[in-house]
Amino acid sequence: MEIQVNRSINELNEKLAGELNRKFSSDRLFAVNVMGAPGAGKTSAIIRIIENAPFPAYVIEGDIKSDIDTKKLEMLGIRAIQINTGGACHLDPPLIATAYRQLAPVSGFLFIENIGNLVCPAEFMIGEHIKLLLTNVTEGSDKPFKYPLAFEKADVIVVNKLDLLPYVDFDEGLYMGGVRKLNPHAPVFMVSAKTGEGFSEVVEWIADRANSVIGK
Amino acid sequence: MEIQVNRSINELNEKLAGELNRKFSSDRLFAVNVMGAPGAGKTSAIIRIIENAPFPAYVIEGDIKSDIDTKKLEMLGIRAIQINTGGACHLDPPLIATAYRQLAPVSGFLFIENIGNLVCPAEFMIGEHIKLLLTNVTEGSDKPFKYPLAFEKADVIVVNKLDLLPYVDFDEGLYMGGVRKLNPHAPVFMVSAKTGEGFSEVVEWIADRANSVIGK
Repeated sequence: MEIQVNRSINELNEKLAGELNRKFSSDRLFAVNVMGAPGAGKTSAIIRIIENAPFPAYVIEGDIKSDIDTKKLEMLGIRAIQINTGGACHLDPPLIATAYRQLAPVSGFLFIENIGNLVCPAEFMIGEHIKLLLTNVTEGSDKPFKYPLAFEKADVIVVNKLDLLPYVDFDEGLYMGGVRKLNPHAPVFMVSAKTGEGFSEVVEWIADRANSVIGK
Repeated sequence: MEIQVNRSINELNEKLAGELNRKFSSDRLFAVNVMGAPGAGKTSAIIRIIENAPFPAYVIEGDIKSDIDTKKLEMLGIRAIQINTGGACHLDPPLIATAYRQLAPVSGFLFIENIGNLVCPAEFMIGEHIKLLLTNVTEGSDKPFKYPLAFEKADVIVVNKLDLLPYVDFDEGLYMGGVRKLNPHAPVFMVSAKTGEGFSEVVEWIADRANSVIGK
């Protein structure tokens, strides 16, 4: 019985995610599902991307309880909608649909910051065009081996906190070996949200992918 | 229906966790549920605690897929049992019971390294005597506000990567304010698993709590 319940929830989730994705596309809004562990720097990375973005950009902020990140974005003049899951470990399409109703219709970039969690968010589509996985050099080089699904599903992988590289034992060869076993094609960008280094390349790649949706 | 299914799963979980806890106590084994985000340094912290421990110590290693940490522990002569959840985002009592059968009977310390995740593990008892929450200064000072349940449930909070403090913006006042709103009493220790700083105090506190179980 449990398996049937799960299957029907997953099927419903995929159906709703597909509908949401078509809605975003018809609004010419390119949606990026930003996933990463707690403290990886998701909000800071989103801010750096938006600073460099060639299109208007909006954010849906997922958080269990607080609205700290939404306030941070609003102080910078970025329009952001807060979702509080109250305890749930990932976002889902009904939450995104409700949040988007407060923004719609807009076109450009939509960054959806998922709950800080390297496990559960990777299992659920939420209407995105691409999944951006944010990791960082302080987490250690073994993360692809330990959280494989997130790395497997990512369309682009961004490695943050490059400014801390001199002070930590990050083995880039081990990390990239693990990434490539799971995901042969996703580009991997090294960045520092603190200094801004590396973000122009990330934005260029996303804008290129977004062009068929936003620029049509 | 979904709520009933969840309730019966939670009730069963608590019953099994209680049985496991009584089994550990009767073996004079003090069980520590080690929780923290990916890359917080859970394995490194467990190694530092065991180096300083006044009792024999064993580890049950939770990981979605890899056995990297178990191999690391075994190379140091620490007896460790691997659990691979295959995708599940937290450990549960049946997994621990199966793993403990490979160790039993032993007495001393049992460190159970949960899946790297600040959300889901906090919801499930796994037979532990105490929950140790490991955070670190690179994750930022706002984590108590964003992942409240883990902080609320912790019996002891250990803040790792003190060696990186000069290079990050960690606001100890903000962090401690957030911790104390959720958890007025748990001790908070600042440590560096890289240098070993601060671990003798952590071990002293755990050993003191363990004495009624191990030394009886």
